[in-house]
Amino acid sequence: MSTLIKGGTIVTASDTYQADVLIDGEKIVTIGHGLSADTTIDATGKYVIPGGIDVHTHLDMPFGGTVSSDDFFTGHRAAAFGGTTMHIDFAIQPKGATLRETLDIWHGKASGKAAVDYGFHVAITDLPQSVMDEIKNCPDYGVTSLKLFMAYKGALMVDDATLFKAMQQAAEHGLLIMVHAENGDAIDILVKEAIDAGNLAPKYHALTRPPELEAEATERAIRLSEVAGSPLYVVHVTNAGAMEAIRDARARGRSNQIFGETCTQYFFFTKDDLAREGFEGAKWVCSPPYREKYDQEALWGAVASNALQVVSTDHCPFWYEGGKDGRTAGKELGKDNFAAIPNGCPGIEDRMMVLYTAGVRGGRFSLNRWVELCCTNPAKLFGCYPQKGTIAPGADADVVVWDPNATYTITADKQHQNTDYNLYEGMEVTGMPSVVLSRGRVLVQDGEWKGEQGAGKFVKRNRFKM
Amino acid sequence: MSTLIKGGTIVTASDTYQADVLIDGEKIVTIGHGLSADTTIDATGKYVIPGGIDVHTHLDMPFGGTVSSDDFFTGHRAAAFGGTTMHIDFAIQPKGATLRETLDIWHGKASGKAAVDYGFHVAITDLPQSVMDEIKNCPDYGVTSLKLFMAYKGALMVDDATLFKAMQQAAEHGLLIMVHAENGDAIDILVKEAIDAGNLAPKYHALTRPPELEAEATERAIRLSEVAGSPLYVVHVTNAGAMEAIRDARARGRSNQIFGETCTQYFFFTKDDLAREGFEGAKWVCSPPYREKYDQEALWGAVASNALQVVSTDHCPFWYEGGKDGRTAGKELGKDNFAAIPNGCPGIEDRMMVLYTAGVRGGRFSLNRWVELCCTNPAKLFGCYPQKGTIAPGADADVVVWDPNATYTITADKQHQNTDYNLYEGMEVTGMPSVVLSRGRVLVQDGEWKGEQGAGKFVKRNRFKM
Amino acid sequence: MSTLIKGGTIVTASDTYQADVLIDGEKIVTIGHGLSADTTIDATGKYVIPGGIDVHTHLDMPFGGTVSSDDFFTGHRAAAFGGTTMHIDFAIQPKGATLRETLDIWHGKASGKAAVDYGFHVAITDLPQSVMDEIKNCPDYGVTSLKLFMAYKGALMVDDATLFKAMQQAAEHGLLIMVHAENGDAIDILVKEAIDAGNLAPKYHALTRPPELEAEATERAIRLSEVAGSPLYVVHVTNAGAMEAIRDARARGRSNQIFGETCTQYFFFTKDDLAREGFEGAKWVCSPPYREKYDQEALWGAVASNALQVVSTDHCPFWYEGGKDGRTAGKELGKDNFAAIPNGCPGIEDRMMVLYTAGVRGGRFSLNRWVELCCTNPAKLFGCYPQKGTIAPGADADVVVWDPNATYTITADKQHQNTDYNLYEGMEVTGMPSVVLSRGRVLVQDGEWKGEQGAGKFVKRNRFKM
Amino acid sequence: MSTLIKGGTIVTASDTYQADVLIDGEKIVTIGHGLSADTTIDATGKYVIPGGIDVHTHLDMPFGGTVSSDDFFTGHRAAAFGGTTMHIDFAIQPKGATLRETLDIWHGKASGKAAVDYGFHVAITDLPQSVMDEIKNCPDYGVTSLKLFMAYKGALMVDDATLFKAMQQAAEHGLLIMVHAENGDAIDILVKEAIDAGNLAPKYHALTRPPELEAEATERAIRLSEVAGSPLYVVHVTNAGAMEAIRDARARGRSNQIFGETCTQYFFFTKDDLAREGFEGAKWVCSPPYREKYDQEALWGAVASNALQVVSTDHCPFWYEGGKDGRTAGKELGKDNFAAIPNGCPGIEDRMMVLYTAGVRGGRFSLNRWVELCCTNPAKLFGCYPQKGTIAPGADADVVVWDPNATYTITADKQHQNTDYNLYEGMEVTGMPSVVLSRGRVLVQDGEWKGEQGAGKFVKRNRFKM
Repeated sequence: MSTLIKGGTIVTASDTYQADVLIDGEKIVTIGHGLSADTTIDATGKYVIPGGIDVHTHLDMPFGGTVSSDDFFTGHRAAAFGGTTMHIDFAIQPKGATLRETLDIWHGKASGKAAVDYGFHVAITDLPQSVMDEIKNCPDYGVTSLKLFMAYKGALMVDDATLFKAMQQAAEHGLLIMVHAENGDAIDILVKEAIDAGNLAPKYHALTRPPELEAEATERAIRLSEVAGSPLYVVHVTNAGAMEAIRDARARGRSNQIFGETCTQYFFFTKDDLAREGFEGAKWVCSPPYREKYDQEALWGAVASNALQVVSTDHCPFWYEGGKDGRTAGKELGKDNFAAIPNGCPGIEDRMMVLYTAGVRGGRFSLNRWVELCCTNPAKLFGCYPQKGTIAPGADADVVVWDPNATYTITADKQHQNTDYNLYEGMEVTGMPSVVLSRGRVLVQDGEWKGEQGAGKFVKRNRFKM
Repeated sequence: MSTLIKGGTIVTASDTYQADVLIDGEKIVTIGHGLSADTTIDATGKYVIPGGIDVHTHLDMPFGGTVSSDDFFTGHRAAAFGGTTMHIDFAIQPKGATLRETLDIWHGKASGKAAVDYGFHVAITDLPQSVMDEIKNCPDYGVTSLKLFMAYKGALMVDDATLFKAMQQAAEHGLLIMVHAENGDAIDILVKEAIDAGNLAPKYHALTRPPELEAEATERAIRLSEVAGSPLYVVHVTNAGAMEAIRDARARGRSNQIFGETCTQYFFFTKDDLAREGFEGAKWVCSPPYREKYDQEALWGAVASNALQVVSTDHCPFWYEGGKDGRTAGKELGKDNFAAIPNGCPGIEDRMMVLYTAGVRGGRFSLNRWVELCCTNPAKLFGCYPQKGTIAPGADADVVVWDPNATYTITADKQHQNTDYNLYEGMEVTGMPSVVLSRGRVLVQDGEWKGEQGAGKFVKRNRFKM
Repeated sequence: MSTLIKGGTIVTASDTYQADVLIDGEKIVTIGHGLSADTTIDATGKYVIPGGIDVHTHLDMPFGGTVSSDDFFTGHRAAAFGGTTMHIDFAIQPKGATLRETLDIWHGKASGKAAVDYGFHVAITDLPQSVMDEIKNCPDYGVTSLKLFMAYKGALMVDDATLFKAMQQAAEHGLLIMVHAENGDAIDILVKEAIDAGNLAPKYHALTRPPELEAEATERAIRLSEVAGSPLYVVHVTNAGAMEAIRDARARGRSNQIFGETCTQYFFFTKDDLAREGFEGAKWVCSPPYREKYDQEALWGAVASNALQVVSTDHCPFWYEGGKDGRTAGKELGKDNFAAIPNGCPGIEDRMMVLYTAGVRGGRFSLNRWVELCCTNPAKLFGCYPQKGTIAPGADADVVVWDPNATYTITADKQHQNTDYNLYEGMEVTGMPSVVLSRGRVLVQDGEWKGEQGAGKFVKRNRFKM
Repeated sequence: MSTLIKGGTIVTASDTYQADVLIDGEKIVTIGHGLSADTTIDATGKYVIPGGIDVHTHLDMPFGGTVSSDDFFTGHRAAAFGGTTMHIDFAIQPKGATLRETLDIWHGKASGKAAVDYGFHVAITDLPQSVMDEIKNCPDYGVTSLKLFMAYKGALMVDDATLFKAMQQAAEHGLLIMVHAENGDAIDILVKEAIDAGNLAPKYHALTRPPELEAEATERAIRLSEVAGSPLYVVHVTNAGAMEAIRDARARGRSNQIFGETCTQYFFFTKDDLAREGFEGAKWVCSPPYREKYDQEALWGAVASNALQVVSTDHCPFWYEGGKDGRTAGKELGKDNFAAIPNGCPGIEDRMMVLYTAGVRGGRFSLNRWVELCCTNPAKLFGCYPQKGTIAPGADADVVVWDPNATYTITADKQHQNTDYNLYEGMEVTGMPSVVLSRGRVLVQDGEWKGEQGAGKFVKRNRFKM
């Protein structure tokens, strides 16, 4: 079956031009004028962009005695409604498990549920020699990115020796190292001290994870990767200091080795949001925490000037009022102690709309840069380009027809994310998807869900290469 | 008549994929597979890229009592042989002339000769109120970039008041300000002192134009443009200090306002080349002069990390042994005094090959970045995108089939530039054009000239917008 | 006659220790214990510091049709009350005058009036070859610092050629170049535009002199001096950008060549003070203007970390309500047009107290650093050390007994500066002079004036050497 | 008994002036002219400076199965010959020992041997709660600086939690934290890999400890101290990256909290010295290793511009050919494996001469800065000022009469350091001590030893305060 997207303006990471897109089966086959197909989608007055790729998500993830509230179906549906047609989730190694076993667990979570395509990073938490030796097999598993945590002491955190050895393996076998960069040792002490002092409200989550500790760990990961010779991707950069560490490394000749992402929400919130009245601030508890206005400006500048290369979401939703009415436990777990609040916020549905509105319409960066940050760079850095991430003949027909003039007020009531709140509650966006296709199939059209559970496929990714 | 470029790998500023390109008349109409046309060009194993755009050239330019040795035919032919299908030349205002008159002079130079498409920047040297008032008409003339000289005191140099007022006009009317950034006041003194001291050899050209004076003027232009609110494009950046001024301005939030280019030759030569035996160094006399090894590394880093956005040539050839055998006067004018050596070097033919070899093959930057630096960014910054600068339906069919494996040894004997020397003499390049098309017509095929004098057209450019 | 200052704590730029100071005639002769003298001053519980040196003042200075309101007696008396026992004033060259004639005019102003010691910088406004040739004689005149203005177009401003040539002379003859660093060309345009637009209130003084234009000129002066090889001292640095230009030059190996001062008031006021109700803002009109809170923090950091080396005042008082009751014309001249407001603020009396309170007590820098910024560095940079600027045997007995616990509320009513307002009105300071001596003579004791008109002497200064 | 040092030029961290110094007993009592005493030392034509203080030494230190070759007598005598009259040695905690026990061991080493005054830092290697609780007692022990190692994994290295907790204690109790900043985890891996690969020559010592790992750890210590609120002193900074981390922290407002030292030898040697023929390179094995020429320039700039505050030696001598003729084992231990080479180099005797020659005479920094780096800043930062570190009434009479014109060729044969080699072998210095006094007693006069074993005293130091 063929589909023609007709009359729109194609927008890629570098190009903007008027042409029609012909899809045959799962692929884009031709771009031009005067084409015809079985079905036509009218894109007049709209942009035709590659589907968004969110490389930082946590669906159905066990955390602190509960599990994140979106699974591989609800999360995928929400993603699609926001114009995102692929994500890469973290398969988190249980202590003692092999990487193969780890991936199998996560494949099990996705199986039969997936509605959009997906990949996995493997998050290493335990690195005996046997697992070290297994790293080289990851490309055969279709996984070419490894995440390590420099925070969450006693749980996910690895020491520098482990991190460095993993980097050496990555350098040798063409994998990309991802780090959660915060100094877990110091945070662990600050958290204990806060609790001992009876400082238990949500705002202490931010106060016990100061930005200096993120800047520190960022610089540490950069320097270790410089010595190991591995590429490095720093996830969820939140503040000027951490961003400058990345920017400066790139300026000293490492622009093809050191990369960084921030997440949508860090442009919009500050640590003051964690101090909202009552327990409200718990909705904003994620790690690293929100910072200052100053840092927001620094991040906008960084994504515009290419100091950072990707905007993802770290989508990891929990119920604000969970543990009842069939809901898994949520934020309320930390009612009496910020340290027990599940870390994470929803956002996979909001990303493209919020960034289009505040970034492109707000004059922060160009239309092409928006596509590059949300679609193309994720695909390139994570080894699935040009299958994904652009509009070109031969690419998977993951295509979004974007209506730049449609308006929508974000609200938990109308969202598709499986949570009872939305960080952007009440924010009016201009620009949203009108049609979303995944490998040629329509998932969303005019606000209606047309997708299918189980139609999403695992994307085997290639070795890192820039 | 239609042409199909078949079997190649299309490379744009962001994309790399296999597809065929169908050209109908002067335009690219379709990209895909299974297309057919009157004529087919086999691009198997080759890249299909947009034609190069060199935004900094001086053809048929009067300078110091002579004229640059390439005219709008010989220069265009040389450009085409190197894969460049458009350039923007500087129409230099004679004292007392209007901008309209200035452009008419340059249109006269191109008329009947042009073999590739071209545009003009107007280089302002004299700015009475009447000319100031005329600036707003430039977009109607198809000219949307103004150059001002902060050097060449007594000849081309303008003072800060003139520069600032021009920036204000540019800000108001959507023009891009270009500056030659060197402190002409101090250089003028240093040159006179060198001459008085009997320091007359070519190397004193470099010694009397130290890098600090370029860094200074670059910072000055940036700060003035920040206040005036105009976009700024600093031409021919040669050293780390000047580059860092641009990089830092972009880092402080001006990445959509402050831009910089360097030229091919600054990656390869140092001030030691001006001190070559005898008068040989005169071949390397251009302004600003070559710097140090350290600066070369800084420039490679800068084009890779987007501190600089464009690589052009400042193509302005003069004979080394001119003034005889029908040659216009050349470098020999300064035999007894470096200050009389015509400033300028050839390079329009070499740019794409030299950068592909040392940049892409040398691991300095990606294939896409090469296209972005040489083709796409020039088109975008100078208002002729997407007509020029990319491979997309609707664009002019300025297309180069690039053979990444072909080798060639650069030498003056074989070059098409109208000079008796080549800076890169003896350098072996890997990667060169096999077919070059301008608006659908073949100009060069397998090393043979098929172009036509007079077929090149003036490109009316749009107002600056990023 | 001998005097013993007994029981105090001596504070120099590097040392803090308890000892007595024996003065014989005009000199400090011995420091130690168990000494005796004709007269004893009890300094128990107090600091004994070198007299302050203010290297940036404008007494009895013609400006815009009036004259600054302190002459060489009233200004000196005010200085002494604040703990300052020497200043260096600007002898501003009238167009056409020789430097010798210029200095003679200023010697005439001081003659018979001076109550503390003083020196002169010569401020060059007109530099024909004859004056250029005269520069080398300045050390014989006892003057080893030249100031040039990069602002005040049409009045004091010199072009870059003049500045650069003066730097070359300075490099050759051991003089220190001082610059007022603002881009006069651009300011001139902005001022005219503001006036044309009817923007005439005092706040437009700040808005027409944006910080970018100071940062620009600062970088320009630095780069020119790097090429000329001369030492450079940038006066009245007001903002982060300009300060960073100095800091970065020092970091790249120029710490013995590039220096900068700020003035007391730039730590305390912002451009909002120029927008005070009615004409009140005129009191704060000086050049460069006050900036932002952010800049204040940057300046505090800079004086603490030695990015800047001196704090002076740019004391240049005018009446707020002048031109009547025997007062010279003052700020009211610009009632209808900010551009006609005499530029300048009082402060010579307040400097040491305000900086002690906010700097030392406020934890911004150490006691020793305060002495270094206010006394020692001025003497060293301007060639009168160790005659001035420290407490050591052999030095002039310019000594201040400083009571660290005395409190005082600054107010125009009680001040000795010859103006009808004080910028710091109502500010409570802790720490002030209890006794002030100039070459062994008591000028101020317990708030009472004991000095003498005509007793101050011109200080011949030595060539620059760091 | 009293002594008069007559006719010299006194040089302190800020002052240079001619006066005589009267010593009575152990103290300087008076500075001035016309003084008399029991004994007179003629200092005509010479400088009179405070005795040098070397805050980084390892006398009689156990390391890798041997012990450093200077004890508290030979090391002190060598120090005195070089103009250094106090040092602070590291008392290194044996695993399981209390801090009190640790200090007692080191007091035992010094007892009866000391010829100059000395203090101790305690180097923490093991920090159970009991030792954590003991930290607050250190000031009572006369010890106000704690050192922690971020390198030497498995031996001295502490983890970040330990480091951070120690910083919190230091912040609370007025102690200064010192760190050896290299990433021990990564180094440990690189060393093992080198050994496994059979890369055993001395040069691999440098290659397995790359500068990035020092820059990393430096930044980490700075960030942790910023959060803990403690002052930090980074020892033996060797390269531009690490220095810039300190410089930048100071620039962002931490100039009263973050400090750094380099050591004399890092100005003079590079990693190429470790690659000298045969086993010769072992003489240069110390940690961190020598770097590049570029880093030397960066360090000179840093001590001049106050990015670094102290120059010490890390004096830790070993025999090149030890383990025979009554010598303790030395460098030969690592003949077959660089990792077994005792880490350390001699230098306590050379520091002041080498820095005077290359620093002051070489135009790198001023005479006063030399005194500040070598004498005054060490005393201030480590809590023994003004008892030590300056020439002032009330200070200990640790005084050096320095002959600026005396010349000397450094050679192992003539040195007083107890080693069979000297890094500076054959270097000619101009400027050396002619008389050295410790608390009023002559230790060295005209090259002759007049000191006494056991006369040196432990200096109880005060809490950190800047």
